Amino acid sequence: MNTSSQRPRVLVIGGGFGGLSAAKGLANSAVDVTLLDRTNFHLFQPLLYQVSMAGLSPAEIAWPLRSILRTQKNARVLMLEATGIDLAAREVRVRDGDTGEDDARIEYDYLVLATGARTTYFGHDEWGKSAIGLKDLSDAVEIRTRVLLAFEAAERSKDPDERRRLMTFVIIGGGPTGVEIAGALAELSRFVLARDFRAINAKVARVVLIEAGPRILDSFRQELSTSALRQLEELNVEVRLDTKVTDVTPDGVRLTSGDFLEARTVIWGAGVGATPLTESLGVPLDRAKRVLVEKDCSMPGHPEAFAIGDTAAFVHQGDRPLPGVSPVAMQQGRHVAKMISNDLASKDRSTFHYVDKGSMATIGRSRAIAQLGRFRMSGFPAWMAWLAVHIFFLIGFKNRVAVLLNWAYSYFVYQRGARIITGRRLRPGVPPEE
Amino acid sequence: MNTSSQRPRVLVIGGGFGGLSAAKGLANSAVDVTLLDRTNFHLFQPLLYQVSMAGLSPAEIAWPLRSILRTQKNARVLMLEATGIDLAAREVRVRDGDTGEDDARIEYDYLVLATGARTTYFGHDEWGKSAIGLKDLSDAVEIRTRVLLAFEAAERSKDPDERRRLMTFVIIGGGPTGVEIAGALAELSRFVLARDFRAINAKVARVVLIEAGPRILDSFRQELSTSALRQLEELNVEVRLDTKVTDVTPDGVRLTSGDFLEARTVIWGAGVGATPLTESLGVPLDRAKRVLVEKDCSMPGHPEAFAIGDTAAFVHQGDRPLPGVSPVAMQQGRHVAKMISNDLASKDRSTFHYVDKGSMATIGRSRAIAQLGRFRMSGFPAWMAWLAVHIFFLIGFKNRVAVLLNWAYSYFVYQRGARIITGRRLRPGVPPEE
Repeated sequence: MNTSSQRPRVLVIGGGFGGLSAAKGLANSAVDVTLLDRTNFHLFQPLLYQVSMAGLSPAEIAWPLRSILRTQKNARVLMLEATGIDLAAREVRVRDGDTGEDDARIEYDYLVLATGARTTYFGHDEWGKSAIGLKDLSDAVEIRTRVLLAFEAAERSKDPDERRRLMTFVIIGGGPTGVEIAGALAELSRFVLARDFRAINAKVARVVLIEAGPRILDSFRQELSTSALRQLEELNVEVRLDTKVTDVTPDGVRLTSGDFLEARTVIWGAGVGATPLTESLGVPLDRAKRVLVEKDCSMPGHPEAFAIGDTAAFVHQGDRPLPGVSPVAMQQGRHVAKMISNDLASKDRSTFHYVDKGSMATIGRSRAIAQLGRFRMSGFPAWMAWLAVHIFFLIGFKNRVAVLLNWAYSYFVYQRGARIITGRRLRPGVPPEE
Repeated sequence: MNTSSQRPRVLVIGGGFGGLSAAKGLANSAVDVTLLDRTNFHLFQPLLYQVSMAGLSPAEIAWPLRSILRTQKNARVLMLEATGIDLAAREVRVRDGDTGEDDARIEYDYLVLATGARTTYFGHDEWGKSAIGLKDLSDAVEIRTRVLLAFEAAERSKDPDERRRLMTFVIIGGGPTGVEIAGALAELSRFVLARDFRAINAKVARVVLIEAGPRILDSFRQELSTSALRQLEELNVEVRLDTKVTDVTPDGVRLTSGDFLEARTVIWGAGVGATPLTESLGVPLDRAKRVLVEKDCSMPGHPEAFAIGDTAAFVHQGDRPLPGVSPVAMQQGRHVAKMISNDLASKDRSTFHYVDKGSMATIGRSRAIAQLGRFRMSGFPAWMAWLAVHIFFLIGFKNRVAVLLNWAYSYFVYQRGARIITGRRLRPGVPPEE
């Protein structure tokens, strides 16, 4: 129990955009902030697809949380995994991966749940062995490994059918993740790997993007969807619209059209949901297990507990829940920090309003589409501007200029170091480490 | 069998300094070179300790082999593991990690065995679970992971004894590897981690270096050993000379002095030997299983087969075998390339002479010792100069200036990205992946 002489203890679970924004938003509040994360780093997710396609290295998009929060005196970072939340008792059960103990508890006065998203397979969890998602760094490294190993194996193969299967890549899901991976993969094989391999012609790698609906990037305007489609086709990506996947096996995927696409590498960009942690809350969840939060982002019946980012379903603005994108998480993080400060100053809670500063999707290195209100841009100046804005407003740590320059450099010179296969040598097909 | 109209086929096993130098040395010869490696990259080993101490990231010291050899028209790269060599039949058995097949064979006219070194535990293989060596990238990442996790666990621990054990690091072996790791670890905890952690005082991390002989860096001159010892002590590293390890357990190490040093993290820099592949050769090996090569680096009785670098024991210069350092491997690689060219031009073989261009060891970021003939330098200008020389003469690929600048930058600004814990979240104590 908190005695009244203690400062309120704010427990933030998750060090992504949402959690970090919330923690930083409380820098000047009379609270003690504890940030928990299963990893020791913050991940810049918008560029995760770059790691998966060997354009950037993991260390270029991940920074230790305790470094980022080092100068914030009221914040501390603990590397722990939350396993259950007891809203009534205001405690969180945590597992210490080091000792294996999992019955330690951390009490709180305020809770911010920001654990992000997990890949879901619409009830077909067994597809997870063959079709890998892209939600964290180990996913990205695993995808990169499988793609590079596929080319290596094709280089050695003497069987034309096997070679064709090895050089066929299927990406499921035509949202930003799938589109960005498809574009980057097409460019990787045509412009980078084509020069490195002798026996195979990496230019003829086949990249197929499967989308269940009538258009890709359906959260963008129609004309931008069309533009993106054209740009993908310029890169020789085959886009199958109005097509669903009915089965995923180690040999390929079966489609609603009846086709079986033989492919060694299948990447899943189609489904995300909240982490299983939300099930321990006992509050209303949507079908993707996200918390149906109130207008101020708090959980129903628990004004001291908030859920933000991909963990939450905010349905009070527009006719759809807010999308699971970084700016939403960031703005919600700042909002809940303000709500907590408001409480301390005896001010009222307020409704969260998401300000859409624009959306962007890249298709390869020099193509992109963006929309900001009525303003639509394309091409890579737009992409660089968007990245710069993302960095500057997202997380204000001092070496952001260096980070931006580093990304630009790495990106444009096709840093070869990003194309190493690490962690294991010759063992593809093994499911990613958890 | 090779028909006389085919060009001679040179098979190089191993893409390290030796193998790569040999392959590149044959760029202008009328031969076809095949380079095999279990990984897809060349590793710049002198900076491996930097990755292990979170100063550099893996991608900064590793480059894909097929990129490096891309413009060499007579060379191809295959990602395969050699499992056995039949010198009489002139074939190498390879395992395809992808398909699992392990009975494929590659024929050759010339063989260059350059598979490098493996960590050995002097017959105590069981120590390998607790004491990790530093010979490849996954070792380096594993050490980094264990070190960072130890600090994370100490941050959470409420038991002072446990905390002490977690913040005690033992390094076994006072050669360049052990000394460099000890210095880098002392600096990492005092200058970098001390700022990031709250509950613990990382400055009081205890780093103990164990050396069996009377001085560290015994391949250097006495006065430099003494200087290195002093520099380590300035960093608060405890150096135990004339001390051997009699047992290594997950709780610490037992010493010949009778002491038991409680430590969670033990790093092994004490023993290396050749890979088990040499045992399939049927030629004389030394105790560390290295091939006792002839004066021209060929294997006894097989002038068409060479062994170089750490795989070989060259005993024809001085009273000790040549050390297992990069310049030896590089020069031998170039020598065997010349021997093969000589054969094609009907010239005689010649004796290999190693030209010692100097040795260097670093103790932390701003300390170093170096000797070159009579010339002795210390301090980090010497270190930068040595690195520059290493890079420029080692491997001539075009972005070496960029690489050097990148290292300098990363190194001096303590790139935070190098301090991420990747691959797994909270599972220490698991042996490194193979």
